[in-house]
Amino acid sequence: MKVAVFGTGNVGDTIGSKLIELGHSVMMGSRTADNEKAKAFVDKHNGKASAGTFADAAAFGEIIFNCTAGVGSIEALKMAGEKNMNGKIIVDVANPLDFSKGIPPSLAVCNTNSLGEEIQKTFSQTKVVKALNTMWCGLMVNPTMINGGDHSTFVCGNDAEAKEEVKTILKLFGWAEKNILDLGDITKARGTEMYLPIWLSIYGATNNGAFNIKIVS
Amino acid sequence: MKVAVFGTGNVGDTIGSKLIELGHSVMMGSRTADNEKAKAFVDKHNGKASAGTFADAAAFGEIIFNCTAGVGSIEALKMAGEKNMNGKIIVDVANPLDFSKGIPPSLAVCNTNSLGEEIQKTFSQTKVVKALNTMWCGLMVNPTMINGGDHSTFVCGNDAEAKEEVKTILKLFGWAEKNILDLGDITKARGTEMYLPIWLSIYGATNNGAFNIKIVS
Repeated sequence: MKVAVFGTGNVGDTIGSKLIELGHSVMMGSRTADNEKAKAFVDKHNGKASAGTFADAAAFGEIIFNCTAGVGSIEALKMAGEKNMNGKIIVDVANPLDFSKGIPPSLAVCNTNSLGEEIQKTFSQTKVVKALNTMWCGLMVNPTMINGGDHSTFVCGNDAEAKEEVKTILKLFGWAEKNILDLGDITKARGTEMYLPIWLSIYGATNNGAFNIKIVS
Repeated sequence: MKVAVFGTGNVGDTIGSKLIELGHSVMMGSRTADNEKAKAFVDKHNGKASAGTFADAAAFGEIIFNCTAGVGSIEALKMAGEKNMNGKIIVDVANPLDFSKGIPPSLAVCNTNSLGEEIQKTFSQTKVVKALNTMWCGLMVNPTMINGGDHSTFVCGNDAEAKEEVKTILKLFGWAEKNILDLGDITKARGTEMYLPIWLSIYGATNNGAFNIKIVS
């Protein structure tokens, strides 16, 4: 499959690399066609990765992973161009963390709205699925790194088929079916994004980012 | 120990009953001295419980559990009277859930502030410890009900000794030391309160409120 990965940070690199390992073709999208990090990504995956603008990547991909910084995601997706994204799934991995007022960050949008919803509203012909935004990127693509892979991840979105496709990808990443919880429509992105402050607090209290939560009952 | 429990709902009843079971004397506080639910609470714990106004209970208790509805907590605590609470620990179990705009509720305060902080700021001579607000009340006092008691709970607050006292109570409730995570100062209440939306989503998706999260790493 051809996959667009928006964002050249750790999250984009980690998810893009995993997708390549799984046999997919990845184009990493960024603001400019000559982004240095994107070039390095292409170099290390000789022949299986390419790079371009957000618009190039969006046109290339059959599915899009939004791994941009949440506060810049809407702008990045606008640069990608609606016509290049319409009808496609956008897996929104971003969190609207606002570091402009210092550490810890606040959320640029929360409570009665979320980044996931904002993307779905702004690009109404896409199918936004919020996923994987509740953990460190290393665990996103390698859940078996901790607790034998037995911990929880979430999907939400308005399109049932799109969620099934994303769940299939999560399973290829190593997630057990029983640990993927569908929370409902895209408004449920509020909860997964508002989980970030406690995630940051737990990370701060334990000095370990390689943790996740497991729902027990 | 003499304990004040503010609030006559399920949370106050559950925590108050557990404290009595553990041998403590409990006074349930509410707006009026003749609250029907508080009377029923007193009746079922013949001799070991009493009821009164918030002010009566605050004066009685060596420690105070705030189990009022979060959107009314500041007002309830004002009725209790600063002079009756100064120097005491307030275990803040409340969440600022605002149901006024329908279901699901939003948070009346979040992101750059929290109810826990607001209580600490308003009643600066008390020692606020945020605790137990991340789960259904049945589990608060009976964690062994699920997963052999192996799941996570949080405390935060500005006073280290107060947190230790609350941790001691949590252990009497059945919480294992290793599962009680101190997140830091009272600003960390933001995270535990902002966890509520995903808690509500998980409850909605699973139709089971008797769940909790376990941190795995």
